[in-house]
Amino acid sequence: MSHALDEALALQPLGEGRWQGRPHPAWANMVGPYGGITAAQLLHVAMAGPQCLGEPLALTVNYAGPVADAPFEIVARAARTNRSTQHWTIEQHQDGALCTTASAVFAARRSTWSAPELSMPAVPPPEAVAPETRRPPVEWPQRYDFRFVEGGWPDYRNPQELADSRTVLWVRDQPERPLDAPALAAVADVFYPRVFRRRQRFTPAGTVSITTYFHADSAAYAAQGSRHVLAVAHGRRFTNGFFDQTAELWSHDGHLLASSHQIVYFKE
Amino acid sequence: MSHALDEALALQPLGEGRWQGRPHPAWANMVGPYGGITAAQLLHVAMAGPQCLGEPLALTVNYAGPVADAPFEIVARAARTNRSTQHWTIEQHQDGALCTTASAVFAARRSTWSAPELSMPAVPPPEAVAPETRRPPVEWPQRYDFRFVEGGWPDYRNPQELADSRTVLWVRDQPERPLDAPALAAVADVFYPRVFRRRQRFTPAGTVSITTYFHADSAAYAAQGSRHVLAVAHGRRFTNGFFDQTAELWSHDGHLLASSHQIVYFKE
Repeated sequence: MSHALDEALALQPLGEGRWQGRPHPAWANMVGPYGGITAAQLLHVAMAGPQCLGEPLALTVNYAGPVADAPFEIVARAARTNRSTQHWTIEQHQDGALCTTASAVFAARRSTWSAPELSMPAVPPPEAVAPETRRPPVEWPQRYDFRFVEGGWPDYRNPQELADSRTVLWVRDQPERPLDAPALAAVADVFYPRVFRRRQRFTPAGTVSITTYFHADSAAYAAQGSRHVLAVAHGRRFTNGFFDQTAELWSHDGHLLASSHQIVYFKE
Repeated sequence: MSHALDEALALQPLGEGRWQGRPHPAWANMVGPYGGITAAQLLHVAMAGPQCLGEPLALTVNYAGPVADAPFEIVARAARTNRSTQHWTIEQHQDGALCTTASAVFAARRSTWSAPELSMPAVPPPEAVAPETRRPPVEWPQRYDFRFVEGGWPDYRNPQELADSRTVLWVRDQPERPLDAPALAAVADVFYPRVFRRRQRFTPAGTVSITTYFHADSAAYAAQGSRHVLAVAHGRRFTNGFFDQTAELWSHDGHLLASSHQIVYFKE
């Protein structure tokens, strides 16, 4: 039985860096697909290129326009290859209209001096946190096991403003699936918009641009397996229709797997 | 007398979104130009397009290859224009080789609910902080007035490892120049690589990709004028040749003007 994430990544190669797909119903958001699955697809296409060098280091995805429930095409190009890094330019089109632009950087890593600077917050292990049984009324959250330590779904019945928008949760694919870079790119967008949390109030909102930096490599993904990732997010400033939020994604044993930043539109 | 920043931005239009320039000697780094000036140039070119909508919201610059001391060409394309946002794709080439790729998002902002989440650190005002008189032996730092509150130039005579890489400084263009989005894009890269601070040790290093989110609009730039910006940066994780660092840039009166994130290569 195939996994919904792998099904979404199974795009059809058209040759010369062109791929065809169609939004997968399991990843539907309120309008169009979940942004995280689009990010995973664009990264996956670059990784699937025969000339792809090393492992994902950075991914920026710009959500330029809506993706309709219809075929789309992704075009990925290795724009420059250096000795140990490679820069990709990626676009998603639908019926001639540009939906998404992205850039990805890959790197062949070498062992160097290494050290953390941030530390993982002290939290109970995932087994000690109850799985959240409620889901927002869209499809994609069904694809994850959410275990909120702090800052769960907003309570829209009680729309009082909070002082901060921080959320801390253990999260993993549901059903379980071994972590890899596309899965990490997808889960980096797993936080609902921080403005919902901050105001305990719904407003139309959507990611405009997301950037994820990958610290994990193949060895780190293998060490993580399909365990929960600790995901932490908070906002920085909300002003005149846009806000930025930052997330950290931690391995089960306290290593920073990725940091992710996004700027988000909100209506009012 | 023209300002070195404006001189660097004075590229020659070749028509149809193509611009020609040459690295400005006032902004030279150890190898090629200061990354911040390249970011400012790429953003400026999009802003100078006759069809440019609104004001800068997000800018990602990928430093794909070195920029030699020779003519370069920048090509900027409005890839998608929506009612209130516009997505640009930008590339810098030199003699047929790709040097830099970038994406920029512009937005026409409307008044909405607004609130800070981060607060500016409590620091003495710029007048109470001594200007740093020493400079690294490259040209571009001469273009800024640095007033370090915390985490000044690394002491390479004393290479002991520090627990964190935080730097806090007041900074402005030198000579003074009213702040605008290109100047803010440039100053977002003003921090020397956090690995130098963390280890108090030099190693070859360079930004691979930087993303800046702009909270400031024209009114905020006008309110700031040419006053010092409070710039705060810290690292997240250093591992196998790469680390990520995050910066906040604050107005003189405590508003977050921009946040900026980058992933940086280091040699050993």
